[in-house]
Amino acid sequence: MKRVRVLIRPKKGLLDPQGRAVQEMLQDQGFKAKRVTVGKLVEIELEGDQDVKTLVERYIVNPLIEDYEIEEIV
Amino acid sequence: MKRVRVLIRPKKGLLDPQGRAVQEMLQDQGFKAKRVTVGKLVEIELEGDQDVKTLVERYIVNPLIEDYEIEEIV
Repeated sequence: MKRVRVLIRPKKGLLDPQGRAVQEMLQDQGFKAKRVTVGKLVEIELEGDQDVKTLVERYIVNPLIEDYEIEEIV
Repeated sequence: MKRVRVLIRPKKGLLDPQGRAVQEMLQDQGFKAKRVTVGKLVEIELEGDQDVKTLVERYIVNPLIEDYEIEEIV
């Protein structure tokens, strides 16, 4: 059994309207938020030895607009 | 400058329809996905020494339906 965590962020340079909205809201509340990004967290438990990178690139992220990192959870 | 990563997941025991949908899709594609959760990844750069826990609990997560973890990024 393998557990993987996929951290997905809007690609740098592309708009992140949700992050921008959160940043402005935090600033309005008095927090000195310099930068906020809002992305997705996908955690998958897989049986056997499967090709996680292919799975993630083909079915989980949209590489045109998203960057991602895969972490194995021990 | 402090960078924090907030990992947000649907609370255990509550429905995670998005995770269920991804799991079924992966299984249909032949992957032995035992469990999938879909949550949010929020990354924040803050200036100065601010109360991150309060910020997160008050403005970022909905503690009724979400669990979260805060990680400092070095």
